[in-house]
Amino acid sequence: MKVIILSRVLKEKQIEKIKATAVKAGAVLCFVEEEKAIPEGFLDAEVLYGFGTETAKTSTALKWLCVPSAGVDYLMGPGAFANEDCILTNSSGAYGVTIAEHMIAVSLMMMRKLTLTYAETLQGVWGKPKPQKSLKDCRITVLGTGDIGSNFARRAKAFEPKAMVGVCRSGKSEETCYDQVVPISELDGILPSTDLLAMSLPDTAETKGILSKERLSLLPEGAYIVNVGRGSAIDEDALSELLEKEYLGGAALDVFRTEPLPKDSPLWKTKNLLITPHVAGNLTLEYTLDTNVDMFCEDLLNYAQGRPLKHIVDRKIGY
Amino acid sequence: MKVIILSRVLKEKQIEKIKATAVKAGAVLCFVEEEKAIPEGFLDAEVLYGFGTETAKTSTALKWLCVPSAGVDYLMGPGAFANEDCILTNSSGAYGVTIAEHMIAVSLMMMRKLTLTYAETLQGVWGKPKPQKSLKDCRITVLGTGDIGSNFARRAKAFEPKAMVGVCRSGKSEETCYDQVVPISELDGILPSTDLLAMSLPDTAETKGILSKERLSLLPEGAYIVNVGRGSAIDEDALSELLEKEYLGGAALDVFRTEPLPKDSPLWKTKNLLITPHVAGNLTLEYTLDTNVDMFCEDLLNYAQGRPLKHIVDRKIGY
Repeated sequence: MKVIILSRVLKEKQIEKIKATAVKAGAVLCFVEEEKAIPEGFLDAEVLYGFGTETAKTSTALKWLCVPSAGVDYLMGPGAFANEDCILTNSSGAYGVTIAEHMIAVSLMMMRKLTLTYAETLQGVWGKPKPQKSLKDCRITVLGTGDIGSNFARRAKAFEPKAMVGVCRSGKSEETCYDQVVPISELDGILPSTDLLAMSLPDTAETKGILSKERLSLLPEGAYIVNVGRGSAIDEDALSELLEKEYLGGAALDVFRTEPLPKDSPLWKTKNLLITPHVAGNLTLEYTLDTNVDMFCEDLLNYAQGRPLKHIVDRKIGY
Repeated sequence: MKVIILSRVLKEKQIEKIKATAVKAGAVLCFVEEEKAIPEGFLDAEVLYGFGTETAKTSTALKWLCVPSAGVDYLMGPGAFANEDCILTNSSGAYGVTIAEHMIAVSLMMMRKLTLTYAETLQGVWGKPKPQKSLKDCRITVLGTGDIGSNFARRAKAFEPKAMVGVCRSGKSEETCYDQVVPISELDGILPSTDLLAMSLPDTAETKGILSKERLSLLPEGAYIVNVGRGSAIDEDALSELLEKEYLGGAALDVFRTEPLPKDSPLWKTKNLLITPHVAGNLTLEYTLDTNVDMFCEDLLNYAQGRPLKHIVDRKIGY
C-alpha cells in the first residue's frame, strides 16, 4: 500500500511515529512537502495524509484522503474527488485544546480591554484602567458543541459563568459542562440572553450566514462574539455596523469570508474588533501536531486491517 | 459613629448599599472624593473606608481603616498610623476573580504569541502562525496561594496542566486544585520543574526580592512568569537579562518596583515582556467593586455590634 505524507511541519518525533506505524500497516511511505513533488511511482498512491486537494481532484487511485484540518469545506464542491468513493477523514479532535485556549484568550482580551491596554503599552504608554466585563456571571452560548466548542465550554466553566448553553444540530451533547443544549432551530430564543456567543461551526449548507443581520440584532446590547469556525457563518457587514455603533461590546474573529483579510477591508479599522489571522488552530503547537499524527496513525492501522476508520467525514453533511 | 466614605468610583448601587448598612449600624456617613475634602465635623471620624493614608497618618480618632485594596504595603511603614491601635482591614477576597482572569489572559497571550500577532494586526498585517506553548501539560507553580493565587489555580486547572503546585508561607492550603502545596522554604526545589510561575504575593519583609537572580536561573529554559502581586518580589534587571537572552519564554508583569513604570525604563523594550499598567485588579469591574463594598458593609455591622472584623490585616506580618 502506497501512502503519501504531504507536510512541511512534521518534526522528527512525528515522522518516527508514522514510520513505525507504516511498518505495522505494511505501508510504503513517500514524504513530500508539496503535491508537485510527488514522484511518478506514487501518483497511484492509495492513501494521502495532508492537504492533498490536487491529488484528490486528479487521482482515481486515491482511496483515502486524511486531512490535517478539522474543517473540510474546501473539499465539498463538485469535482473535489476524482474517485467519488474516496474516503475522507479529518482531524477533528486535534484542535479542541488549542482553539479553546485561543477562544478564552481573546474573550478575556476583549472583555478586559487588554486590546486597548496592550496597544498603549506597545507605544510605551502607562494607560489608565478601563471599563471591564468578566466571564464570571456571564451568560455564554456555545454555537457548535463539537470537540472545539466543548473544550472551550469546559474551560470557560471554571470562570463561573451564570449560564452555559450549547447549541448544535442534534440539540444533544454528552458533555456535562452545559446547563442546557438546544437544537439550532431554537437559536433565536437563546440569543437575547447571550452575553458571549462562542462560535465553532463547520462551514456547511446549514451554517452559512447563520449569524445574519436579524440574528445579530437579537443579541443584547454589550454582547461579545468569538468566531473560530468559518467566516461564512457571519454577516460581516452587519457585524461591523453593530460594532461601530457600539451596540455590541466586541468581536474576536479568527476566520473571515475572504482570507487573508484583504488589505483594504474595512474590518481592519472596525471599532472593538479583535482580528487574528486564522491562527487559533494552527499546527505550531506541539500537542496539536502530535494528536493530529496520532489520529492518522490510528486510522492507518484501521485501514490496513480493514476496520472502519474513526475520524471519517460524512461528505453529504460536510463534517 | 462617624464614618467617612472616600471614593471616586462608587456608583448609585454601591452607595445605596452603604447607606442601608449605615442605618443598621447607627453610622453617620460622609461621602468625599479626596481626603482634603473631609469636612471639619468629620476630622474626628472613627471609621474610614477608602485609601485614607493621610487621615491614618494624622488622626488619633481613627479606630478602623478599611482600604479597598488587597495589598497594604503602603501602610506598613513607621508613622503610617497616628493611632497605633487603629484596626486595618483590606479587601483581600474582592480581587481574586478579576486578577485570576488577568493572569489567565496574559499567560495565554504570551504562550500563544498573541502579543506578536496582535501587534501585527494593529498594523493591518495578516501575520504568519508562530511557535506556541499551551497550558495543557504545563507545569504550573502558584507562588502565593491566597484568594488571588487560588482563583487563578482553579481556572488554570480546567486547562489540564501536568502539575499544579502551590507555594505559600504555611505550606498548607484548603484548596483542592493543587496537586501539592509546599512552604516557601522549598521553592528552590520546585522552580526547576516549573513551566509557568504565577506570582501573587503581598509585599512583606519575606517576599521582597524573593525571585532573585539566583532563583530566576533555577527556572528551566523557556519558562514563563506572571506577576500580579508586587513589583518588589522580582529582580527586574536579572529578569530583563534572561528575557533578552531568550532563556525565558516570556514574562507578564502588571506590577513594578516603580509605578508608573518610568518612561525611560529599559523594560518597555525588553523582548518577550508583556507589560500591563497595574490593571489586573482595578475596580472598573462591577463584580470587584460590589464585592469590595459588600465586604466593608459586612465588617461595618460587625464593628457596630462589637464582633471581630472579618477582613483584618495582621499589621506585624503585613497581610
